[in-house]
Amino acid sequence: MQQASVIGLDFGTNSVRALLVDAAGGGELATAVEVYAHGKEGVILSDDPNLARQHPADYLTGMTSVIRAVLEAAAKEHRGFDAAQVAGIGVAATASTPLPVDRQGKALAMTRRFERNPAAMAWLWKDHTAIAEADKITALAEKHRPHYLAACGGAYSSEWFFSKILHCLNTSPEVFDAAVSWVELSDWIPAVLTGTAAPGKMRAGICAAGHKAMFNAEWGGYPDADFLRRLDPKMAALRGRLPAEAHDISESAGRLTEEWAARTGLTPGIPVAIGGVDGHLGSVGAGIRPGVLVKTLGTSGCDMLVIPGDQPCPSIPGICGIVKGSILPGYHGLEAGQSAVGDILNWFVNYIRPHGAEGGHASLEAEAAQLRPGASGLLALDWNNGNRCVLADPRLSGLLVGQSLYTTPAEIYRALAEAIAFGALTIIRRFEDYGAKVRSVVASGGISEKSPFMLQLLADVLGRSLRLSRCAQTSALGAAVAAATASGLYRDVPAAQRAMTGVKPQVFRPDRRAQSVYRQLYALYAQLHDAFGTRDGDTSLHDVMKKLLELRARQRGEA
Amino acid sequence: MQQASVIGLDFGTNSVRALLVDAAGGGELATAVEVYAHGKEGVILSDDPNLARQHPADYLTGMTSVIRAVLEAAAKEHRGFDAAQVAGIGVAATASTPLPVDRQGKALAMTRRFERNPAAMAWLWKDHTAIAEADKITALAEKHRPHYLAACGGAYSSEWFFSKILHCLNTSPEVFDAAVSWVELSDWIPAVLTGTAAPGKMRAGICAAGHKAMFNAEWGGYPDADFLRRLDPKMAALRGRLPAEAHDISESAGRLTEEWAARTGLTPGIPVAIGGVDGHLGSVGAGIRPGVLVKTLGTSGCDMLVIPGDQPCPSIPGICGIVKGSILPGYHGLEAGQSAVGDILNWFVNYIRPHGAEGGHASLEAEAAQLRPGASGLLALDWNNGNRCVLADPRLSGLLVGQSLYTTPAEIYRALAEAIAFGALTIIRRFEDYGAKVRSVVASGGISEKSPFMLQLLADVLGRSLRLSRCAQTSALGAAVAAATASGLYRDVPAAQRAMTGVKPQVFRPDRRAQSVYRQLYALYAQLHDAFGTRDGDTSLHDVMKKLLELRARQRGEA
Repeated sequence: MQQASVIGLDFGTNSVRALLVDAAGGGELATAVEVYAHGKEGVILSDDPNLARQHPADYLTGMTSVIRAVLEAAAKEHRGFDAAQVAGIGVAATASTPLPVDRQGKALAMTRRFERNPAAMAWLWKDHTAIAEADKITALAEKHRPHYLAACGGAYSSEWFFSKILHCLNTSPEVFDAAVSWVELSDWIPAVLTGTAAPGKMRAGICAAGHKAMFNAEWGGYPDADFLRRLDPKMAALRGRLPAEAHDISESAGRLTEEWAARTGLTPGIPVAIGGVDGHLGSVGAGIRPGVLVKTLGTSGCDMLVIPGDQPCPSIPGICGIVKGSILPGYHGLEAGQSAVGDILNWFVNYIRPHGAEGGHASLEAEAAQLRPGASGLLALDWNNGNRCVLADPRLSGLLVGQSLYTTPAEIYRALAEAIAFGALTIIRRFEDYGAKVRSVVASGGISEKSPFMLQLLADVLGRSLRLSRCAQTSALGAAVAAATASGLYRDVPAAQRAMTGVKPQVFRPDRRAQSVYRQLYALYAQLHDAFGTRDGDTSLHDVMKKLLELRARQRGEA
Repeated sequence: MQQASVIGLDFGTNSVRALLVDAAGGGELATAVEVYAHGKEGVILSDDPNLARQHPADYLTGMTSVIRAVLEAAAKEHRGFDAAQVAGIGVAATASTPLPVDRQGKALAMTRRFERNPAAMAWLWKDHTAIAEADKITALAEKHRPHYLAACGGAYSSEWFFSKILHCLNTSPEVFDAAVSWVELSDWIPAVLTGTAAPGKMRAGICAAGHKAMFNAEWGGYPDADFLRRLDPKMAALRGRLPAEAHDISESAGRLTEEWAARTGLTPGIPVAIGGVDGHLGSVGAGIRPGVLVKTLGTSGCDMLVIPGDQPCPSIPGICGIVKGSILPGYHGLEAGQSAVGDILNWFVNYIRPHGAEGGHASLEAEAAQLRPGASGLLALDWNNGNRCVLADPRLSGLLVGQSLYTTPAEIYRALAEAIAFGALTIIRRFEDYGAKVRSVVASGGISEKSPFMLQLLADVLGRSLRLSRCAQTSALGAAVAAATASGLYRDVPAAQRAMTGVKPQVFRPDRRAQSVYRQLYALYAQLHDAFGTRDGDTSLHDVMKKLLELRARQRGEA
């Protein structure tokens, strides 16, 4: 295994990245990024603010160029490097990003007839055109297949596979009818690279199928034909052309074709691993293992946890997804998340622009970091974009309480950051209430790279030590781990993780005094959470403002 | 009564104003303002942010100069005007603004020994040094004299007479011991002008005594000596040197002395009316009468209502003060208020400074005025400075709910303005729940002069037509009405009001469509109000955010 290296590809929202790593130690040999050619920052928009598409051709040209770029860079910078050392490829991608394909597995948007038709392109994860269809699917499942919803947090999302396909059927039937099948981006890329894209031949990944398309081996794969027929008979017919099985990332989707080897400079025949959802592979790249929650802190937040597959996996209400094999092969993969993290702070800075916000996040954060916990008398809910977990209710909104006539922007900024941390704690408590222990947290994602303030705040609120993933490109690294496993360099994914992933030396440990104040604030947060978010919380709130004032006085040294 | 004129003096927070009006029609002949000489904008401050004092000498020099100024201006501008036409003087002043006096009624701060001692000066209404003493008085009254509190909304304030005197006793005993008595500014000025300032000789007004010093003829005047002794034996001793009676503004405090006639250029012997609290005389100047609520909209808000004295006056929980004769002689005077009105909007503009707030209130208000009611999905509570009525709880704070990731500053500005209007409606509903009808509203004060937006919003939320006082200087005009009555030009105050006061022609009438949306929003406001402000409200709040979203969708035309 000496000198073997692997490539992890990460198809993100705006760009595709290739990460070439040393398969022995996970060290980065080279990385390259290319923004997709079409649209605004790689996303094709329209007058409809809900629409977000990508052109499939961009994935292929982008991928070709980043692979060639890393091979060239490594050859230049690493003496003795040879592209022949690359033993495998792994693929991470946004999800659910489905695209319609023809009989050969070619994207419809890459045929002349549909090349400019947005409905024939890839429906990017954040496309929200299918809200009505999502509601319809949720209502139908509530009535007839409640177990489908139990595995995805109680509601089927407009961002997901079947909502988008049904919306295409409703609004662009010519595209729907021309599509032989629909494929998740994370499946399509491995299929293209290995020449297995034709429906019937393609091997799907459990990660996207399980979390975004209600695929579960226990109920025979995708939702049954009867269920889909109630949506539309054509949906039931489509089911017959979808894969019957789904595989985990330790398996291979196939072997690199001569054609793609020639295009990229890689060796034909090397294995391409089954693809996975970027967030999930990110947790693999951050070293996820039982007891370690991997937390992605970006515009929104994603929390991933695994439970050994031989242990019973609880059904946890309000956790977005629980899928066997979705994160680590052989483990139950649990995904939860917050529908807004960085976006809440971005809203305050970019929409409210306090004091003109000329200093951006940095100056507000610096000022907020000087404040003592509880000293502002403020408390917020982190629901400006609804609540994904544990309430699974998009129809919730933000809340700020405790304002005086002297409340400052930095105090509000801190209260919003604290609310994000309280939301994170709520998810961890829910996991633990159902027996899934969280001993420590590994953070990754944009905010974790930029904001030690947020990491310390999280440690204080969560009451757990927090470390940062060593590699900033966790999704690409996770894909590389999959590549190393699928190509047989390691016995299994955990073995590859132990060799290839790790955390930075710095540990954010809870400050005991802050922690004690946050325990009191969290009790008040929980009161608001239950009063506004549930039908059955103890909703007596008469003491909330007074307790905030008492805490404020104590923390300001006034009492 | 032809050619008779009267002078209304108004001792405000920063300046004293004289308004010379035609006693027949209330027309303004001249007005003059002078900022008090000492301190910052007429207010003496210290390191203690709670301290706010004024130098009594400033009142006298300021008053002299504004009276001379109006006489000169009138002589110049009104052909045939003669100072001898001035038939009387009335006095409005901030309250409670007590000052310690010596045996002759001279302010202690005007004696050499105390001239630089802040404790010997006038304790301006907004001085908050006596919070602990107020709590002590409230606690004592709760235990032993609950009827004292029933007449002042349930809590004795740190802004009021006995709190301040007790604080002086506790912290500056040398001043307390040197004081023969303590006098409200609204009593001291008439007493000085008429040479009746010596304790024992001075005639007090019921307005300040009743609303700020628990004076009530039914229980024998000021709080009884036993009660005061429990605070401090010296307080009980002081009671013997306070006036035994209190009078209304139709009566005269005495007649102008030769000395003050010479100083001012007025005729000696003209009557000086009993003084009153500026807000109350403001309602007189705005034409208060049964069924017409006079609403002062300034940094905070004051709502005044009268009930004929021959009708039983309900005890209304949460209304700050109910005093017989305090506003109109022979009527029950009811005062309620909001602890922050303009101050909430000022906080948002000056402390949060959205988008730099370069356009100040004007540009935010212009943008907010373009929004439809309910279209933001936001709802606020107007408690940034606590709640004066009807909860009488200073330990409440602000709240904003319904924020999305796209909420704008103008939407928040409008939500805050709406919250102010909802707070106003809560007071009116409380009045009416106890049988005190409010048929229409007359507004006065800074905001009413500046913001047609706020007036229309109030009309829409209150569901009542709103007019604006014709005269912007309502307190001074109310003092002039008192002067005209005390000098016998009118039979009684209502007769003087009918002749001298009025409203502007413009009527702000409720817009029926806005009113219907606000009824729905107010129901949600009431839910929040009761949940956070009371122990016994129906506090189920799970529907609040959803109803706001539904309303938002309807008002945006999305549903």
